[in-house]
Amino acid sequence: MAIDPERINRTRNLMREKGIDAFLCRLPENVTFFTGWWPLTGTSWGMFTVDGKSHLVVPACEAPEANAAGITEISTYEWAHLAVTDPEGEMIGAIQSALHGFGIEKGTIGIEGTFDSIAPPLNIAEPALPSSITTQMLKDALPKAKIINAVDEINSLRVRKTPEEIGKFRIANEIAGFGLEAFRQEVRPGISEIELAARVNQAVAIRGGGYKGIASARGFAQISSGAGTERAWRPCVITGNRMLEKGDIVLLELAVVSDGYWADNTRCTVAGRPDSKQKKIYEMVLRAQKAAVEAIKPGVAMAEIDKAARDIIDGFGYGKYFIHITGHGVGWRYHEFPPLLAPGNNTILEEGMLTSVEPGVYIHGFGGLRVEDNVAVGGDGPDNLTTFNRDLG
Amino acid sequence: MAIDPERINRTRNLMREKGIDAFLCRLPENVTFFTGWWPLTGTSWGMFTVDGKSHLVVPACEAPEANAAGITEISTYEWAHLAVTDPEGEMIGAIQSALHGFGIEKGTIGIEGTFDSIAPPLNIAEPALPSSITTQMLKDALPKAKIINAVDEINSLRVRKTPEEIGKFRIANEIAGFGLEAFRQEVRPGISEIELAARVNQAVAIRGGGYKGIASARGFAQISSGAGTERAWRPCVITGNRMLEKGDIVLLELAVVSDGYWADNTRCTVAGRPDSKQKKIYEMVLRAQKAAVEAIKPGVAMAEIDKAARDIIDGFGYGKYFIHITGHGVGWRYHEFPPLLAPGNNTILEEGMLTSVEPGVYIHGFGGLRVEDNVAVGGDGPDNLTTFNRDLG
Repeated sequence: MAIDPERINRTRNLMREKGIDAFLCRLPENVTFFTGWWPLTGTSWGMFTVDGKSHLVVPACEAPEANAAGITEISTYEWAHLAVTDPEGEMIGAIQSALHGFGIEKGTIGIEGTFDSIAPPLNIAEPALPSSITTQMLKDALPKAKIINAVDEINSLRVRKTPEEIGKFRIANEIAGFGLEAFRQEVRPGISEIELAARVNQAVAIRGGGYKGIASARGFAQISSGAGTERAWRPCVITGNRMLEKGDIVLLELAVVSDGYWADNTRCTVAGRPDSKQKKIYEMVLRAQKAAVEAIKPGVAMAEIDKAARDIIDGFGYGKYFIHITGHGVGWRYHEFPPLLAPGNNTILEEGMLTSVEPGVYIHGFGGLRVEDNVAVGGDGPDNLTTFNRDLG
Repeated sequence: MAIDPERINRTRNLMREKGIDAFLCRLPENVTFFTGWWPLTGTSWGMFTVDGKSHLVVPACEAPEANAAGITEISTYEWAHLAVTDPEGEMIGAIQSALHGFGIEKGTIGIEGTFDSIAPPLNIAEPALPSSITTQMLKDALPKAKIINAVDEINSLRVRKTPEEIGKFRIANEIAGFGLEAFRQEVRPGISEIELAARVNQAVAIRGGGYKGIASARGFAQISSGAGTERAWRPCVITGNRMLEKGDIVLLELAVVSDGYWADNTRCTVAGRPDSKQKKIYEMVLRAQKAAVEAIKPGVAMAEIDKAARDIIDGFGYGKYFIHITGHGVGWRYHEFPPLLAPGNNTILEEGMLTSVEPGVYIHGFGGLRVEDNVAVGGDGPDNLTTFNRDLG
């Protein structure tokens, strides 16, 4: 899974413009971005040179899988076994050698100095990050290089996805669909929130692995139910052992990663059968969501997409319950920015941006309802990557 | 779930000694350590003053759960909804107010300047970290304070667990036992690695939620099988869709977190029935593991524990296959250090340290076998928190 040639061109152009000779990154999301490889652990590095060379530096024990995944430009270092007396030194040596090989050890090296929130590696229990230790290590290892904080440059590259990349995010959304399907199949009065979430995650992991060549997929389902859905707008809810009851709204917020490419979907249903009020309010949310999706095209202000959804909900008199923005960037991680489909944001949508579209209402005494798809900005309109049905059930 | 009074005493003593007026941390593992709360997202902060006050700063939407969990000293700020125009400013304001309330806005504030690897929050898909942005934000927000990198102090506090804390790690190991039990029940020729892992994770999530008052438990199972077990010493293996075959060694590496407290266990079995060679080599590994566990007590050099295991494996002529160390610290995250039960490490074990004990052998053409428990250094011997049976099956 090498990276898209179009991505290579775009990156080289920006590097020439900014005078950057190489990017050198260790956040899993940036390793994926610059090399195509989703690291197993946080000790992998991605390198990208102004000559267009993408290079992966990984523990030797990680190389066979990376190789099998089509990553051919790899440096390795020994790590995590007794024969290694100085693993840090080996890692630094591998980085130095690679830069030397590219003839840029005296160059300007862009590092990811100010990421404040990250996507984890496959070993999600243990993400690593470039702290001041890492920065100092790089300064010591590359005394002739000029090390700069290149977060702005990296983010400016990440925001517009290439068509090939969109294809990978589409797969992540398809795999998320396996989780959405499990949600629909398993939801019923008497199942607990956490069991429902576990079955969603299980479907993503089992059906996602091997799907269209994906090595590893993982779901991170959050289930809210009943009165809990009133607070389902939060960045994380506690999915607990509450048993679903007949008539409960049940809301699934689902992050999915497939080999480092992320999707972010939401679906709602009702345990048992929806009543007329649930149907009516859901119908409104769905109309708002469709209107926002349909408004997406290059050249439109982000606020306009938000307005398309908000106008409909306002029109029904429910505007005060729609307390969050309509959408955010997604792709290299669960939430990334831009785009930000928010009131007052006059930034213009560009082709290749990938955004969530997720209006919702949260009403005390009733519950919360939201629908969320991931939509790419196509050449002349929306390209909705999330095709799973939006029925309330 | 307030923190242990003994922890408060120890922390205050160190702060007095080092001249630190407050710790101010945002890594989820340190928020748990200083406040008892495992954050839902990476935007929570833990504060601890030299007067012994533990204080949690969280998004307002996270406060009800923290309150319900027994955390009473909380500041909140609005976050993640439209009524908030300056969420960062609100967060900074909450931190400033809390420090002002404690009368230490001019004090020495210890931050976690150089953590390089972290444990994620409940929202594991999106860990946050204190980058240079965070550091600068704190410097701007607390212009009168002296901000220092307090990683050494924080780590020196974390290494010896209090008896009450050991109790929480014991629960994490008990919940891991639910996953180990599912592993034993579900393993069979014809099930895929990823399905087996998903069933383990499901058991941890479903049976762990609500167990002994735990709100949220999550498992991160890695399954190796057949020839794949030869490389099961790695920090992360890809759990794939390979179907187990009769006679395969199957190895489960299982990280579990329960409300921020981590366990790290390994068990092996064979799909179908083990043959005599598998039994014989496993018996050796198990003997080595028991010998290491039994050698654990305060005052013993860490290398001695490693030697207890290694001598047995060496005695059988398999020393060259035992390529990693015998154990590492565990608790506030999946892997933490010290202790490090490694050849040549003459550091002395102290009461309250918590270590994995996990000898293993990895033999080309045969496979890998390992047993891993988490063992606390008790007053006069080992306190093995992992009680699940160690049968090969």
